[in-house]
Amino acid sequence: MTQFMDVHHGMQGVTEDQLRKAHKADLAIEKEEGVHFERAWADPNSGTVYCLSEGPSADAVQRVHERAGHKADEIHPVPFSV
Amino acid sequence: MTQFMDVHHGMQGVTEDQLRKAHKADLAIEKEEGVHFERAWADPNSGTVYCLSEGPSADAVQRVHERAGHKADEIHPVPFSV
Repeated sequence: MTQFMDVHHGMQGVTEDQLRKAHKADLAIEKEEGVHFERAWADPNSGTVYCLSEGPSADAVQRVHERAGHKADEIHPVPFSV
Repeated sequence: MTQFMDVHHGMQGVTEDQLRKAHKADLAIEKEEGVHFERAWADPNSGTVYCLSEGPSADAVQRVHERAGHKADEIHPVPFSV
């Protein structure tokens, strides 16, 4: 299992409620892909959302996001952290 | 206090040891700017490092990073998270 940081652009004006609902949509189906979404952070001004997850591959992370209706623009494996 | 996600580009090949040392350098001086660096994640292939912090302003976060020798390329306030 690897950690991933994915990034969504163009999310200007995203609200806390929208972020929570999007995260819940991921959580509802993530197990089918062996993924777990841990956290997400939003900058509504620049329209950027960062999601931290753990899973078997970037493709599996993307499949969850796509099926939940919000494909990521970038997915970076982050093999280590402090 | 606001949370911030900052991003460093051009860090291709960064090692776990380098990330830990850079994070320690931030922690050593962060209090002088009222900032706390919580976590950092590295993707050595794309050369991207993400840092999550809490502080009074993006400028304060950048001052810590600059004084520690690793200015951030982007700093985004992330006023809410899940």
